[in-house]
Amino acid sequence: MVSPLLRAPVLITGGLGFIGSNLARTLAHRGADVTVMDSLLPNYGGNLHNVIDLHGKIDVDKSDVRDQDSVRRLVKGKRYLFNLAGQTSHMDSMTAPLVDLEINTTAQISILETCRVHNPEIKIVFASTRQIYGKPDYLPVDECHPIRPVDVNGINKLSGEWYHILYNNVYGLRSTVLRLTNTYGPRMRVKDARQMFMGIWMRLVLEEKPFEVWEGQQKRDFNYVDDVTHAMLLAATSEEANGKVFNLGADAVTLNELADCLVDVNGGGSYHLKSFPEDRKRIDIGDYYGDYTRISRALGWSPQISLREGISRSLDYYRNELKYYI
Amino acid sequence: MVSPLLRAPVLITGGLGFIGSNLARTLAHRGADVTVMDSLLPNYGGNLHNVIDLHGKIDVDKSDVRDQDSVRRLVKGKRYLFNLAGQTSHMDSMTAPLVDLEINTTAQISILETCRVHNPEIKIVFASTRQIYGKPDYLPVDECHPIRPVDVNGINKLSGEWYHILYNNVYGLRSTVLRLTNTYGPRMRVKDARQMFMGIWMRLVLEEKPFEVWEGQQKRDFNYVDDVTHAMLLAATSEEANGKVFNLGADAVTLNELADCLVDVNGGGSYHLKSFPEDRKRIDIGDYYGDYTRISRALGWSPQISLREGISRSLDYYRNELKYYI
Repeated sequence: MVSPLLRAPVLITGGLGFIGSNLARTLAHRGADVTVMDSLLPNYGGNLHNVIDLHGKIDVDKSDVRDQDSVRRLVKGKRYLFNLAGQTSHMDSMTAPLVDLEINTTAQISILETCRVHNPEIKIVFASTRQIYGKPDYLPVDECHPIRPVDVNGINKLSGEWYHILYNNVYGLRSTVLRLTNTYGPRMRVKDARQMFMGIWMRLVLEEKPFEVWEGQQKRDFNYVDDVTHAMLLAATSEEANGKVFNLGADAVTLNELADCLVDVNGGGSYHLKSFPEDRKRIDIGDYYGDYTRISRALGWSPQISLREGISRSLDYYRNELKYYI
Repeated sequence: MVSPLLRAPVLITGGLGFIGSNLARTLAHRGADVTVMDSLLPNYGGNLHNVIDLHGKIDVDKSDVRDQDSVRRLVKGKRYLFNLAGQTSHMDSMTAPLVDLEINTTAQISILETCRVHNPEIKIVFASTRQIYGKPDYLPVDECHPIRPVDVNGINKLSGEWYHILYNNVYGLRSTVLRLTNTYGPRMRVKDARQMFMGIWMRLVLEEKPFEVWEGQQKRDFNYVDDVTHAMLLAATSEEANGKVFNLGADAVTLNELADCLVDVNGGGSYHLKSFPEDRKRIDIGDYYGDYTRISRALGWSPQISLREGISRSLDYYRNELKYYI
């Protein structure tokens, strides 16, 4: 069987970012004709070093999803669109809500309108977030859980997600939404906690400095990035996934367990337990872990890389590459 | 007891529109110091004739909620903000999604940011819509019903609503959201069905022309505008309402019953039963009527004007004033 990805023209928005660049690598290895689009905004996840090993194998376009002309130019002729560009920092969404809105909402409807008009045959996979569920009523959180975003980012991401499902349902523009939980792995942002706190933990442990764990008893789930990109490929190539929303997820661990695992796999390191800073506490959601039964049944997906293995691979990467990320 | 509205400086966005102008009248009669803000965009509900009898009694500012400078100028010093400006046409939201987004979402976060910075003591009442529930899972629809917007308007209004609750919860900017169902009465748009189909029905029945009823068996609920403005005043003056979302609603009737009632109260008229046009059918939601138990318990609200009485008052108004609305 010929892979549907072989020589398929593919666009990845946010393709120089953490997940986007890992996806670009997987797609390139499977023979897809990959274009990544990324604005390389300083406080976001884009980093040219993320694709340094793909030089000559993919096309890189440094434009912004808010730029409609660029979107139009890049969407034309593509078979798949992995729509990953986003503002991901919850704190930044509160201090600059209009910027978050432009990227996570306004640009999304522009992208969908462009596809509807100029490339209605394209299949879209949109990266959403578990953040939209807010503080869980029950665990694990399935896709039927009430939606209750606790920050501007959650509200805006939810609109982006709903636009995709709406355009699927009303116009037949095939789209699948994945609600990602905490994703980690090589090429994640480690400069600060804007993408995920595990990034700054890894950086500090590699720099032989103590890291901070807030509270520590909260349970969370963590997906290794290769498991996430695998889910994206399954969603892209399945007609059954059209118009569907799927949680990703993994077994829950406490932040203390995660911190201990990180120190253990690294073979050294330490952390301080701290109570929540006030500005984080008011938007914290307590325990969260996702129920991924729906995607497991529909697409056969489940996480394959254990937390220990994933942390080990991530530390291996940053032991050599840390200087390109700080 | 002195009314909290007496001499209170009040701003109504969308205040030349159907509900806004009726609210302005009620507030002016109660002694409030009313400013209405309205862009008078042609396809919206704003109409200077709506406040012709209030000349000299209220301030009228013809600016757009998308204009941040105007919002800043008008919000300063106000005690209450009735935030009613919106794009309400479901079809227009599909043909011009970015305009709907600007008004129903982007402008809303600008308004909230402006209040947070320049007038954090203001109390806000935001007019949302039952449209966000989509096709009901059960009837009557209460506030716990899953959220499932079926058009761009529903998605964008929902963001606007959530911003208000978020700013209440995170910043203590007191806000109450009312999810309005079909509202009708004097000063509603009757030129076309952009606001509500009952407008065009009334116009045609007064012009002695047949009107169109699509399907006819769908159940819906209808609030007379004075009941809606009364709910807004209750929400504004109740501290218990802060951060809350309330449905409005009324007893359900079928569209056939509504059409028969209209013809009967008018003392003449006729209608054709038609099947749905394709473009409406794909976003239709079937039966809908709201459960208003929550606002009834919290604020003592229930609709007071019967459908028959409301239709009678509306027809009386348009018998004299129709020429200003077509």
